[in-house]
Amino acid sequence: MPPTPALPEITAYRSVPDFACGRIKDIRIRWALDEIGRAYRTRLIGGIFEDKAPAYLADQPFGQVPVYKEDDLILFESGSILIHIGEGDARLLPRDTAARGRAISWTIAALNSVEPMIQTLVVLTVKGQGTDWMAGAIDAAKPFAEQRLARLSEALGQRDWLEADFSIGDIVMIDVLRNASPALLAPHANLTAYVARGTARPAFQSAMAAHLADCAVGEALPA
Amino acid sequence: MPPTPALPEITAYRSVPDFACGRIKDIRIRWALDEIGRAYRTRLIGGIFEDKAPAYLADQPFGQVPVYKEDDLILFESGSILIHIGEGDARLLPRDTAARGRAISWTIAALNSVEPMIQTLVVLTVKGQGTDWMAGAIDAAKPFAEQRLARLSEALGQRDWLEADFSIGDIVMIDVLRNASPALLAPHANLTAYVARGTARPAFQSAMAAHLADCAVGEALPA
Repeated sequence: MPPTPALPEITAYRSVPDFACGRIKDIRIRWALDEIGRAYRTRLIGGIFEDKAPAYLADQPFGQVPVYKEDDLILFESGSILIHIGEGDARLLPRDTAARGRAISWTIAALNSVEPMIQTLVVLTVKGQGTDWMAGAIDAAKPFAEQRLARLSEALGQRDWLEADFSIGDIVMIDVLRNASPALLAPHANLTAYVARGTARPAFQSAMAAHLADCAVGEALPA
Repeated sequence: MPPTPALPEITAYRSVPDFACGRIKDIRIRWALDEIGRAYRTRLIGGIFEDKAPAYLADQPFGQVPVYKEDDLILFESGSILIHIGEGDARLLPRDTAARGRAISWTIAALNSVEPMIQTLVVLTVKGQGTDWMAGAIDAAKPFAEQRLARLSEALGQRDWLEADFSIGDIVMIDVLRNASPALLAPHANLTAYVARGTARPAFQSAMAAHLADCAVGEALPA
């Protein structure tokens, strides 16, 4: 009998500010593992804004979650972890070279060509509340997000997933889109349906439940 | 004799606005290929702001460059292309599982945890020139970039590269950092030296020369 594979470990926050609960990137990893029925352990670390121990920063230079450990492999960044998990299971990343390349391209596109433009609007909205600069800055930044979503909507068309088969690219893209403001998605019925289709998957549901069970709300925002 | 491997093809812009010349992501791919002495072909497409043909959007849903073609493999997103090229050559991506995972984690970190925060400042600076909202918005966004650079500086320490060996992670990170404003890097002498060390590599120099030879400046900004 082959040895039992080690249970992978992921880190998650013990406590986060209310708005962040349900929006942390360990969800992506839990979702991928739940899709393939792979059990994992969770190691809870402090809050988002707590100083991280030097040992943690050695694994995750930016002090974020998740870190993923499996035997002597230590990964950081959700995209890197998803590529690794996908390499081990064709249900998340096709074996065929061309299809695999396309799925990894979508994974990176979600992280570098879509999420940043949405995240900029979140930052300007949160930091700009009650200021006289918020409206101008958001007006300037919003067209970048709108353009990317319009292209994405066109590329998705009437398919269920970004390519023929569900992949890690869909996991990241759906997680990115569900954190966009509803007004940004509203012009694109197919993107709204895509998010609903993805978050209705049993593996997303179980991943979110496990995330919420671990993450106590209530961390204070830094002064 | 094995068949000669196909020459990979990358796309680049035929003409870009003055400020963009030297800053387009095909440089990352040229750099990686030059590091391993792999020849490639360039296919020039229109300008950044020109409408892209449907056939191009089928390969690259966001209409960006580069697209990478090799046999039946078609990749988009510089990160995805770099991972593919790295998988073929240990000088860009170590074979050892743990070291490989770390290099891919750094590649994604550059794209998702560093570049977006720097890019937000570029957008606010370009779009905010002469407005009454620019200063407030930049003050709000800058700490995010500063925090990431401080962590990165700590992680790099006095090493030459992000890990023991130069990898695709360094290619992306150095390309991201060299596009940050000098004031952002100034507090971190080791990051400034890291960028200088990377851009002094013969493969960066030849990649940049080839990029500049292809890219005619002068595309007009959209109204």
